[in-house]
This record gives sequence, C-alpha cells and structure tokens, in this order.
Amino acid sequence: MSKQRLTLVKIGGNIIDHPESLFPFLSDFAQIPGAKVLVHGGGKVASQISSDMGITPKMVDGRRITDAKTLRVVTMVYGGLINKQVVAALQAKNCPAIGLSGADANIILSKKRQHPEIDFGFVGDVVAVNAEVLTTLITANLCPVIAPLTHDGQGQMLNTNADTIASELAIALSSTFDVHFFYCFEKKGLLMDVNDNNSVLPKVHLHDIEPLKANGTIVAGMIPKVDNIAHALRAGVHTISLCHAEDILDILAGNSSFGTIFVAE
Amino acid sequence: MSKQRLTLVKIGGNIIDHPESLFPFLSDFAQIPGAKVLVHGGGKVASQISSDMGITPKMVDGRRITDAKTLRVVTMVYGGLINKQVVAALQAKNCPAIGLSGADANIILSKKRQHPEIDFGFVGDVVAVNAEVLTTLITANLCPVIAPLTHDGQGQMLNTNADTIASELAIALSSTFDVHFFYCFEKKGLLMDVNDNNSVLPKVHLHDIEPLKANGTIVAGMIPKVDNIAHALRAGVHTISLCHAEDILDILAGNSSFGTIFVAE
Repeated sequence: MSKQRLTLVKIGGNIIDHPESLFPFLSDFAQIPGAKVLVHGGGKVASQISSDMGITPKMVDGRRITDAKTLRVVTMVYGGLINKQVVAALQAKNCPAIGLSGADANIILSKKRQHPEIDFGFVGDVVAVNAEVLTTLITANLCPVIAPLTHDGQGQMLNTNADTIASELAIALSSTFDVHFFYCFEKKGLLMDVNDNNSVLPKVHLHDIEPLKANGTIVAGMIPKVDNIAHALRAGVHTISLCHAEDILDILAGNSSFGTIFVAE
Repeated sequence: MSKQRLTLVKIGGNIIDHPESLFPFLSDFAQIPGAKVLVHGGGKVASQISSDMGITPKMVDGRRITDAKTLRVVTMVYGGLINKQVVAALQAKNCPAIGLSGADANIILSKKRQHPEIDFGFVGDVVAVNAEVLTTLITANLCPVIAPLTHDGQGQMLNTNADTIASELAIALSSTFDVHFFYCFEKKGLLMDVNDNNSVLPKVHLHDIEPLKANGTIVAGMIPKVDNIAHALRAGVHTISLCHAEDILDILAGNSSFGTIFVAE
C-alpha cells in the first residue's frame, strides 16, 4: 500500500521576521493539500526582546550560548509569541494548526549538549522523535506547527536548532508517510553561481552531493544544510526541496524552474 | 452507558508564582488517574517581564487593559514560558501533557470584548469551545494543559480570564465526560468565617447558593467565583470542588475534610 503524502515545511528568520513575507507564506501554506507540518525557527525578535529586557547575548567563538535567562526568552518567544501568532494566522485561513514545542506530547526528546571545550548552556540535541503521537495528531486532521524547543524528559526545556528538528521530523515521519520536505531559506535553491539567483540547479541526486562539494558549488554555509539534506535522504525521506518559501506552491504545481529538488536516487 | 470520568483542574497565580507550590502540585496532578485537563492562569511573572521590558501597566477603573504590547507579553509568558515549563515538568512525571492556547486546534474561539465605556483592548470573551477536538486529544491519552489565551478566528490572539476558560471547558466536556472540576484558589474552600481556614463548608447544593449570598457567607471576591460555579453546574458539570490545589489528592481519596464540593442536586 502506498503511503499517504505529507508535506513538511521549514521556515527561518528571513520569513518570520518580516510580516510582509510571513503572512503571504502562511496563506500559501494553508493551501497545501493533504497532511502537513510546519517547523519554524527563531528570528530576530528573540534578540530584540532579550535586549529590551537588558539581557546581553553571550557568545563563545561566534556561537550564541543559551544561558538560563536566554532559555526563558526563547521559550517565551519561540513557544509563545511566534508559535501562537503563526497558529492564529493559519486558523484564520482554515488550516487546523496546533502549535507544539518538543515537550508537548513528548514529541521531541533531546539531551543537553556536552562539548569538551564549550558550554553551550541549555541547548539540546535531538534523541528521539515521537512519530506515533505526531501521526495521531495528523490523522486527526491537525497540522502541527513546531517551535525549535525540546525537552530532556527530566523537566528541562532546551533550545534546539530548527533545521535539525525539521530533518529529524522528516525522517521519523517517513516510516508512516511519503514525506516531501521543503527546506526553505533565503535563496531560490542551490546556486551554480552564488551571486546569481537565476543559476538554480533544478535537481540533485544523493550521489551528486560529494562531487558538488569537491567542485566548489556547495561551499560555506551551504555545507551544513546539504549535509542535513543528505542525512535525511539516506534515512528515508522521499523528496527534499531546497527553496525560497515564496515558491512552494509553484514547486508543488510541478514548476521545475523553482527550487532545487534533492532525491535519493 | 455511563460517561468516562474526567478531572479538570484550574490553578492560579498563588500556585504558578511559587515553585515551592507549583512543583509539588504538578507531582500530585500527574498522579490523578484517568482523563484530565489542567487550566493555568497567568501569575505575576507577566507583570515582572512587562516591567523588565519597560511596559507600564494600563489600568482603567482598577482593571488591567490588554494593549498591543501587553498582549505580546501575555502571549509569550502564558503561552510560552509558563505553559512549557508546566508541560516539561508534567512530562518528567510521566504525565502525557500537551500545552495549548485557545488558538491551537481552534479549541477556544472568542470575541474581542465590546464595552460601552471601557476599551479593554485585546481581551476575548469565550464564544465556543471545540469539545470534539479536545475529546480526540484526551482519548489519544493526552493531557491538555491550557493557557488563558484564545483567538478570534481572524488571526488575532486575545487574553481571556482563566476561571472563565476553565468553567467553559468543564461545561463543553460534560457532554462527553463525567467532569469533576477542581476550582483551586488560595483558600481551603468556601469559608463560613472568612478569617478561619478551618471553617470550610463541606458541601453546597446549587439551591443553597442564593441563601448563602443573602446571609453574607458568599461575599466580595467569592461572588464571581460562585457565580461561575453555579453557571457550570446548571450547564451540566457533575461536581465542582472549590479548594486549595494542595488538597486535590485528599479530596479525590474521599477525604471530606478538604474543600467545598458543589453539586447540582
């Protein structure tokens, strides 16, 4: 029996921070037919609110440290402010959204990061995704909207990277669903020429990835994203589109001039 | 066929604001057998964070006005910080908590309050409770943990009184469940003598309420609470205990020396 299709979309700060991008995107998202899940990142509003509250960002080697005060802010902002604004906007578009952190219904269990040199603070690395309860919610015709927060099962909330959450969810849901994962970012796709938004590679096979790294097409900030994609494809995710959030409906309509589609074979 | 029993508990600031009360309560709550729902209020942390952010509380005739900035704070604090801390703590006690605002899964639709003289701002009065989706969650063995926030169906979050949310949920769930509603507050129950915590009236029938108002036993701040209780009993809620949160397990164990039990007949 063929699996039911599920569309999983990850959006980041480039959409969340700009109402003029966010609301049109949510309108598009609401129109995606069938089962769907939205994962959102953080955005600049957390930094703004931290600064309003007089909390100085703690950085070590250019990486943000989630100290206790910052954890409170991200729990409020990601789990409360952003998540509920997105849910309310989707409900207004007749999308049956249900906002969740990883603690809710124990959907994402994580472990506080242990690093030999850097104390990242309250940052969690994903240990397990509860695909069963997510499947129950999705088959009840609900659309999970997931904030980048997890818990350790001992009562501690943890801050977790939204890209990782999205790919781990895509993997876990692939046992039940035929997952099409839209990994949205600020570019139109994987570019042959990083300065030319019209140089999108339309299709990349898993076996193309290493050669594309070797020839310098996949460089710098694209490397962790593409590694995430390769990991998800190897773990059974059917299709991954690396694209701009504004192009999702065009991609779903079969317009191959938008986004880069990554497939396992 | 007899209905399944459901325990619905409402806690307020006297518990939420004090970790030394909150965590023992959550430990007790996790031990309540069968289907259950927790509704939490706001607490002082929202005022503290507003003040940290330099937001001055707006009051009209002694009532707090929810302006746009305050709505952002309560959405963050009630829907994010408090809700997720409670959920994570319950998960650690093996209680399958799922934190929700009224916007999530459209569980509580409200309408912005219209008042001839006072503009309360972003305050919502409950219009409809989606008992069907709550029943789906509860029968999937999840325990809804509900923040005092609703939405208007047009994309707007609204601030809503937690007591009202709790009684409206108790009423809506009574069509499917045999609801025992624990309405927790800072006293041990309805007191014959307001200065004596040992003067708890053990049992009150619906028809006793008006005489108890007439003879001055139910006065001042107790009046809206008891009116809420009377409304819920008339609308089909089976049993309501007005009590202190620390006494719930004793009351469930049948110890009649704790709390006031309100029954319709």
